[in-house]
Formats: sequence, C-alpha cells, structure tokens
Amino acid sequence: MRAAVFNEPRSISVTDRRDPAIVAPTDAVVRVVLACVCGSDLWFYRGESPFEPGPIGHEFVGVVEDVGADVRTVAKGDFVISPFAFSDGTCPHCRHGITTACVSGGFFPLNGDGGQGEGVRVPLADGTLVLVPGSGHSEDMMASLLTLSDVLATGHHAALCAGVKPGSVVAVVGDGAVGLSGVLAAVRLGAERVIALSRYPVRQTLAREFGATDIVPERGEAATEAVMELTEGVGADAVLECVGTGQSMRTALSIARPGSMVGYVGVPHGVELPVVRMFYGNKGVRGGPAPARTYIPELLDDVLEGRIDPGRVFDFETDLDGVAEAYAAMDDRRAIKSLLRVGTL
Amino acid sequence: MRAAVFNEPRSISVTDRRDPAIVAPTDAVVRVVLACVCGSDLWFYRGESPFEPGPIGHEFVGVVEDVGADVRTVAKGDFVISPFAFSDGTCPHCRHGITTACVSGGFFPLNGDGGQGEGVRVPLADGTLVLVPGSGHSEDMMASLLTLSDVLATGHHAALCAGVKPGSVVAVVGDGAVGLSGVLAAVRLGAERVIALSRYPVRQTLAREFGATDIVPERGEAATEAVMELTEGVGADAVLECVGTGQSMRTALSIARPGSMVGYVGVPHGVELPVVRMFYGNKGVRGGPAPARTYIPELLDDVLEGRIDPGRVFDFETDLDGVAEAYAAMDDRRAIKSLLRVGTL
Repeated sequence: MRAAVFNEPRSISVTDRRDPAIVAPTDAVVRVVLACVCGSDLWFYRGESPFEPGPIGHEFVGVVEDVGADVRTVAKGDFVISPFAFSDGTCPHCRHGITTACVSGGFFPLNGDGGQGEGVRVPLADGTLVLVPGSGHSEDMMASLLTLSDVLATGHHAALCAGVKPGSVVAVVGDGAVGLSGVLAAVRLGAERVIALSRYPVRQTLAREFGATDIVPERGEAATEAVMELTEGVGADAVLECVGTGQSMRTALSIARPGSMVGYVGVPHGVELPVVRMFYGNKGVRGGPAPARTYIPELLDDVLEGRIDPGRVFDFETDLDGVAEAYAAMDDRRAIKSLLRVGTL
Repeated sequence: MRAAVFNEPRSISVTDRRDPAIVAPTDAVVRVVLACVCGSDLWFYRGESPFEPGPIGHEFVGVVEDVGADVRTVAKGDFVISPFAFSDGTCPHCRHGITTACVSGGFFPLNGDGGQGEGVRVPLADGTLVLVPGSGHSEDMMASLLTLSDVLATGHHAALCAGVKPGSVVAVVGDGAVGLSGVLAAVRLGAERVIALSRYPVRQTLAREFGATDIVPERGEAATEAVMELTEGVGADAVLECVGTGQSMRTALSIARPGSMVGYVGVPHGVELPVVRMFYGNKGVRGGPAPARTYIPELLDDVLEGRIDPGRVFDFETDLDGVAEAYAAMDDRRAIKSLLRVGTL
C-alpha cells in the first residue's frame, strides 16, 4: 500500500509500504477512505516535538477489509469511524469513559500504520471502531463523519472539561479546527454566549456560523481586556483552551471567572500553570487527549441527523499524493484543516 | 479589648487593643465567643509565609454587639457564624457562589481585628454573617458550629472541587483538621469508599469515625502504591489535597484515576503542577479559598440536626490567654486543631 511518511521537519512524502494484515485475533484492517491532517501533526512538522521518521496520521474513516477471529462488532465491508486512539472498551478506565487511558490501548500511528495511508491495522477493533449506519452519505456528510475521529470529539472534550452548561458564557481560545469545533460543541451543550478569540477573517466567519456570538481578534493582554469588557468585568463561566502554548493558557486563565474551569486540549508546549494565582482565583484546569471513542456515538447521531455540520472545518482538500501540500497549507494558515481523499467507499 | 497578635515566628502574645467600632454603615461588631487556630496560621507561625506583625485569626462565632445603619439581616444580640472572608453577597462572583472572590470583600484579619480576639468589626455584615437559629446549644454543638467558619466549609470545598458524587471512591491526602473535614464532607456527599492518608493514630481513629473506610499510613511513593493496590490499579475517582505542599500534590495527582479531579484547598507552598503529565493522564485540579459563606446554610442544617459532628476535630482547648500554647500544640502535632474559649454566649 501507499502511505504518507514523515522524513524530517517540513519533509513529508508518500512511499510504498507493506500492506497491513491481521496480527492479533482482535485486529481489523481498515481501508482508508478519508483522512486528514491534525493541528497536533504540525508540532512535529515544524520540528517543535521529537518524532520518529515513519508513518503519520491518526484520523480516518474507511471500510473494514479484514477482521481477526475474535472480532464481533464489525465485519468486512462495514463503513467505520476510527478514533485517534485504540482501546479495549472493557478496562476500568474505558468503563469510566476515559478510553485514551485504556490499559491495553494506544495511539495511532502504530506498528507502521498511520491514518494518512491506504490501510491501517486497527488493534482492539471491537472496542475501537464505530460502525456508521446507512449508506450513500454525501461528501459533506463524509467530511463531518471524519471529524468524529478527533477534532469534533476534542472540541467536545474541551467543552465538557470546562464545564459548559445550558446558559453558560463561554470563551474559546484558539481558532484552529479544534477551537472552531469547541465553539460548535459549546453551542451544542447549550451555551448562551460564545466568545471566540479569533484573528483570521475566514475563521471568524466560520466561528459565527458555528454559533459564536462575539469575536475577539486581539491577543494577549488586549484579548483579556476585550473579554473582560464583554463580560462586564466578570470573566467567562467556562473557557476552552484549544492551542497549547504558554500564552494561550495565560489568556485562558485570565478570562476565566472565579470558580470556573479551563478545559484544555492543545498538547501543552511551554505551558506553566501558575498554581498560587489559580488557587486564589479558584480557577481550575482539566484536559487531555479526548476519549473520542466514548463521545462518538452521541455526536454521531447529531451529525447523521444534520443538527451539526462539523466537516465545515475542512477548507482544503487533496489526495494522498498531495499530503505534503496538505501539511504546508495548514502550516502557512492557508487552510484551517486539510482533508485527504485516500480511497473510495 | 484583648486580642492575640503575631510578633514574629513562634511568638504569639495577647495585648490590649482599641475596641472594634462601626466604621461603615454596613459593618457589624461581633463579640467573639469561640475562635480557633487554623492550619494555615501555622505557615506564618513557622516563618514559612511572610506576615505582618499584628492581629491574627479568621475563624469565629459570636454575638452581634452593634450594627451599622444599613445592616438588615442581623441585630444586636444575635448569635452568628462568620466565614473567614467577608463578602457583599450581591456582586457577580457572590451570585455565582464564589464569595471569596467578592469584588468588595476581603479576608480576616482586617483593620486590626482578627478572629482570635474579644471583638471583630465585620464589614458587609448582611452578606457575611449567618444567624444561628435556636439557643442553649451544647458545648459540642458550639464547637461544630465554629467549624462552619472555615474548616468544614474548606473540606466541603475540596470535595466539591474534586467532584465527589454518590458512589465515588475518594482519597484524602492530609489528616489535619481540613483533611478530616474532607473525609466527613466526602461521606456526606455520598462517597462509597473514603481512603484517608493518615499516619497519626489519633487522626486515623477520627478519620474512621468520620466515615473513612480505609487508612493508608504511608507517604510519598509508598502511599501511591498502597492506594493503587486498594483500588486495584485504577486510582481514586476524586482526590482531596488538604496539605498544600509539593509532595502532597504529587501524591494526590498520582492516585487520581484518569478523568478525575484533585480538589486542593491547602494554600500551595512549593507546589508545581506537572501540566504535561496531567494532560496525558486527563487529570484536572481545582481549588482555592472555600466560599464558606455560600456553603454555611446547607452545612448548618446538618450540624444543627446532629447528622454530622465536625467539632470533633478540636482536641485541644484553652482560653485567649492560652493562645500561644494553642499554636504550639498544633505546631507540635499534639493537637489536631485548637479551640479558644474567648467569651460567653
């Protein structure tokens, strides 16, 4: 099969690799239909995180091509969504809903298979894959289904960790695909007001279309001042930190009202938590890799029923051969999020 | 009036000071009946926090002696509980329940009046003081009422911040009066299992009597191992961090299961939050000065009805002249918490 590989910072290419095959009886092999590039992929792309040269990608939907002898819930020919982490669904952490802490689980790319390739061996298929009902889904619907693999689930996790409730005043720091998904998730959970910190016009527009009521284009202290003015000096009831830098976390904490939570889902890079200031402000933080597998069934219903259209975060698309350009477009901020059309249904 | 003052580390004395008097029309003057020494007082007592020489103490119950012209909810002769912070009860933060962030509020000791003295000027009396119904309360009941001023409310805050729910497996780090109150609060909120990390036999006994189901006497990594063994490798659903040191926070985070919260109420001294480890473990933290004023009405009912007896944390008592010994007893760990009988009802 052909698959994207990371060679070194800013060097992504497509190579021939061995075809994925069943290893354990709980495995499935999935032929990838759609994949995409994640904001977190940019960390290694830019050389800001160490990363082994090799296969890449962790978001994909596709068709089951083969299953191990013990797999019960999916079968050859099924159209499935894979969360970005695999999990058994039965360990205590999975039963508590935190599938990204599964004692038998792990994260893609694994065993030489990334999501940005023609095929993936998916371990623990019964616990991991989610069957998509129906057929003949439109291209827009397919793109929205792909967001359940990571970005919408991650925005939803930020909103849950931040404690968004019906009526909440929410602020979202970061206007990447995760931040925009966070806006959508907060609105879906009943937020009355959603303040999106966004400086790029195309993202501001999408934030508004996803339900943001206010846009703050400033950054740093000016952003804090703007949000405090919008909230009459009180701050937000819930803050979603969707970037992962020291500045974004400082901004998030500064606009959270006392007694509120910052839900953070950007992988922390250079973040320091000012514990004494947090303590006297009664401001909490909670976040981590979203347990997408736990959230998919609930979010899937809303996507299939057309109540939300998270696939609109994709504003650049190409095929597997265009993967290097897909990364470059996101790196240059020409794209919010890049879709890869890898195969056909 | 006579009041305790802090001179320098390990030096507490009692001196004559001007009588408290109404300054603002929203003030009340309270004649103190019972006061006590807080674990947080030991920080300055031991020279571990900077503190201005002068009046001390922030926990007291007493009788209203005078009120300003605008005070409506309490009157001369009323028996009242004062939370350790004063607040107007009307600002946005108070309306959100975070009275310790009141825009007009502050913390005792203020204006030369600490709780460890014969009288206190209480600003914002309507927002701050809580009238205690009934009369002829027993000595045990009086001691329990005093805990509402801080220590029980603080344990309750830790439990709420940690997300204790009916059926939770809870771990409490710290066996001081706050930790023991945290045990009581967790049980009161329906915890099914409460693991108290406690190494002192007298505190272990009280923790058990407050409802702890398991005692872990170890500290540091050995404590982590013991809790993980008790929870079959999973960790606790909610952790109360009731000390405030780097070691206690490390222990708390290490025994919190993925997806859970550490509620922390010990004023942080040398605490660093390991954000990357917290992120990958999906473990959150939240805490701060307890909004005791918000919690008192609810907790008061349980105290007056005899459903809880938090006053049992007091195992040393003296009068105002014995205040230096009250501090020394807690510093030496001869006392869990020291009660001061300052006046009569």
